[in-house]
Amino acid sequence: MARPRALVFDAYGTLFDVHSVMDAARVITPDPQALSLLWRQKQLEYTWLRSLMGHYEDFWVVTGQALRYAIRRLGITATEAQVETLMDAYLTLLPFPEVPGALRALAGTPLAILSNGSPRMLAGAVRSSRLDGVFAHVLSVDTVGVYKPSPRVYELAPLALGVEPGEILFVSSNGWDVAPAEELDATPDYEVDRLDSIADKLGI
Amino acid sequence: MARPRALVFDAYGTLFDVHSVMDAARVITPDPQALSLLWRQKQLEYTWLRSLMGHYEDFWVVTGQALRYAIRRLGITATEAQVETLMDAYLTLLPFPEVPGALRALAGTPLAILSNGSPRMLAGAVRSSRLDGVFAHVLSVDTVGVYKPSPRVYELAPLALGVEPGEILFVSSNGWDVAPAEELDATPDYEVDRLDSIADKLGI
Repeated sequence: MARPRALVFDAYGTLFDVHSVMDAARVITPDPQALSLLWRQKQLEYTWLRSLMGHYEDFWVVTGQALRYAIRRLGITATEAQVETLMDAYLTLLPFPEVPGALRALAGTPLAILSNGSPRMLAGAVRSSRLDGVFAHVLSVDTVGVYKPSPRVYELAPLALGVEPGEILFVSSNGWDVAPAEELDATPDYEVDRLDSIADKLGI
Repeated sequence: MARPRALVFDAYGTLFDVHSVMDAARVITPDPQALSLLWRQKQLEYTWLRSLMGHYEDFWVVTGQALRYAIRRLGITATEAQVETLMDAYLTLLPFPEVPGALRALAGTPLAILSNGSPRMLAGAVRSSRLDGVFAHVLSVDTVGVYKPSPRVYELAPLALGVEPGEILFVSSNGWDVAPAEELDATPDYEVDRLDSIADKLGI
């Protein structure tokens, strides 16, 4: 693609490490990774199922339901306060180490987030990652009441940024955001292992 | 609920054991269970993602793409002929042991299948399970071009059977068919461990 006029980033798993909740999980289980993985898998499943059912609830609700499912399924005992502590970890997620630098290198182009997260969750993660002021727009699916990969979600970005869809580079670690590493008949323009490889790819 | 006027069954995982493909998988991997589980998980994910994207392909296509993903992800080497053999296993699935007897006990009420499967796949599984003639209707999502749990799928059953939705007992092993064991705000009328417990529950 030509040099993009805007860069739009997925949030969870792309900018923010959702498995950084493992520190909080260690208190209630000897296998925090199992909890973290199942929590994340169910969280995504619930976004797809709710979207298909037409029963939207925001990502905070979905994330809480997925956590409770995972705790129950893994036979973990957790108090209500411990569940709340785990949930709060989502408001203070850490970015992947290279993210702040990678974003600084790209700051000549307007940057945005387009995420399943609720506005409050995204504001929390941006703040805890010290990325305030970096993004021209922090866009949440909450505006359209349906989750990725509904086309209605992706339409939010060109609308907010005032550019054509083809002028946006969308950056995501999730196969289904573009269906690349998956087998869903779509291919990405670029594949990179780290976010700080993007500037190089674009020659900026 | 009152005694139902029709019983509608999910197919895969409810009547037919999808993990019976493990015999065929043993030829290409020492861990057929890992392949079977990832294949099934991706198969479901792809139905949800395609439905949300509005990119319907039938269940045969989706099942094949999920299999190829799982093979690649697990680093398995398989020839095209071996992939085809695994796919063919889906046309000759085995029923869970109690299924034929359970259905016979319920045969005084009209029985139907409502499934993600393509018509050809469902016909194959019904035949290999020696259940020909048992079902008044074998309904496929292919008619509406979207997968479960879209409400458009479930609407097929009362339409085909000529009864009200509330007069149908829908039987499924999948949480998301009713969202019971899951955390999605819905509860089933009954929960049973085996299909042959249904007649007792209904007092027939």
